[in-house]
Amino acid sequence: MIWTFVNNTFEPEEKATLQTGDLALQRGYAVFDYFRTVDHVPLFLEDYLDRFFHSAQTLFITIPHTRSQVRAIIAELIKKNNLPESGIRMIATGGYSPDSYTPVQGNLILQQQPLQLPDMARFERGIRIMTYAYQRDLPAVKSINYLMGIWLQKQLTEKGLDDVLYVQNDLISEFPRANIFIITNGGTLVTPAHNVLAGITRKKILEFAGALLPVETRDISVAELKNAAEVFMTSTTKRILPVTEIDGIRIGSGTAGPLTRQLQEQFIRLQESVTTAPYSRA
Amino acid sequence: MIWTFVNNTFEPEEKATLQTGDLALQRGYAVFDYFRTVDHVPLFLEDYLDRFFHSAQTLFITIPHTRSQVRAIIAELIKKNNLPESGIRMIATGGYSPDSYTPVQGNLILQQQPLQLPDMARFERGIRIMTYAYQRDLPAVKSINYLMGIWLQKQLTEKGLDDVLYVQNDLISEFPRANIFIITNGGTLVTPAHNVLAGITRKKILEFAGALLPVETRDISVAELKNAAEVFMTSTTKRILPVTEIDGIRIGSGTAGPLTRQLQEQFIRLQESVTTAPYSRA
Repeated sequence: MIWTFVNNTFEPEEKATLQTGDLALQRGYAVFDYFRTVDHVPLFLEDYLDRFFHSAQTLFITIPHTRSQVRAIIAELIKKNNLPESGIRMIATGGYSPDSYTPVQGNLILQQQPLQLPDMARFERGIRIMTYAYQRDLPAVKSINYLMGIWLQKQLTEKGLDDVLYVQNDLISEFPRANIFIITNGGTLVTPAHNVLAGITRKKILEFAGALLPVETRDISVAELKNAAEVFMTSTTKRILPVTEIDGIRIGSGTAGPLTRQLQEQFIRLQESVTTAPYSRA
Repeated sequence: MIWTFVNNTFEPEEKATLQTGDLALQRGYAVFDYFRTVDHVPLFLEDYLDRFFHSAQTLFITIPHTRSQVRAIIAELIKKNNLPESGIRMIATGGYSPDSYTPVQGNLILQQQPLQLPDMARFERGIRIMTYAYQRDLPAVKSINYLMGIWLQKQLTEKGLDDVLYVQNDLISEFPRANIFIITNGGTLVTPAHNVLAGITRKKILEFAGALLPVETRDISVAELKNAAEVFMTSTTKRILPVTEIDGIRIGSGTAGPLTRQLQEQFIRLQESVTTAPYSRA
């Protein structure tokens, strides 16, 4: 049985519920965050907690627990569920609003699910994507608004593509659930600076990549993207995943590029260094 | 006690719940609609059902009941709750999606609440609004995405304003929960043609107003809005409500204008004609 935490109690997953008056259900008004566990250890937990509490504050959502209480609930959830490799989702909603519009005391949900990362074959093959004109609302906030991303899934399926990259005024921003990086023909790593969610995987790469190659965060045009030597997406569930085709145009050699490989190896080393350190075990 | 219908059963309001895995909670992915009852009779029900089922279809949401079943559930809800003047909300969600992203069989919620319309003093005084650069996603669909509208409430409160009108590229579109009409200095009624939700109150006004004054649906610039003789909003819960100040600029005489009054009277006559007709009683 998998346990889910709702407000003050652990419930079996299928008994974890919210009243239909909650502002997430009435108005899609909630924030969330999502991190991995590696061998029972939460990866980069403090970064995710930073972002979760920041998202809530920006949307005037009151999380009914302190940060240290949330940390303790996570530890208990990991113990109860005993799922070594997992994803943990934290959701804080606008609460049971009497007028179905004004945020009140929020409701907190913590859910854990088994998680499998993309395998090496997937990494080698990379993914095929299309661009689409759209800009996420309040991009610095990890809200639950995925209306456009989910609505576009049907088009992706019909076209046999893996994902969609949002562009606006000829500048690229992000995927519905991931950031994007390019490696220019000159060998510089670049990721969009504006109108994107500050991904935790993105953050870690920006921290360590400077030792391997020059790094820039700035605007990237669609033309520069399509002319890049290598392109990859980053996210908690994907880590680093090469993008090998964009709007029908092949990127680089059409498989995972050499610098992308190096960054992936480096990221896995970083992950191993923090999850095997004894002090970070639950 | 107020009853809420969830999927197959009527539950007391506070026991009406969905599992936390529902796509509305996970990803804000759901559609809804909202109509009034007048002396126990649903007002313009078929129009609202048209829009509700159309919204669901556009978002690939499968409502687990047919249209005639939904109609029968509404009749039973009205009978059980005995709230003569009310609002009824229908929500259809993306369902309990195993991957928290792909819509599956939807969950259906029908909720009824007492509803009070704005009083005459409110109508006379009108409302004060600001404009804000934003365009709703998939505007023809009544989705639950109110991220921007709710986030802006704090600014409205701080400025002592009543609502916000979305504008994009110098053209006006709609309020978060209402349509907008202007009456030009030449005496023509105009409402934006594009990028708005097709409001039912808007629709009814467009149907009957031609007998009173010339009517156009077309683009409206911010400058034309602010120079209009009269401006009003329309919605299910507001009917017609004068807008008397926009971004600090007084509109017309600063109170409800003469043509707005005539349209409001006409709308109330229409409402009375359909809710007192014996065939439309439950």
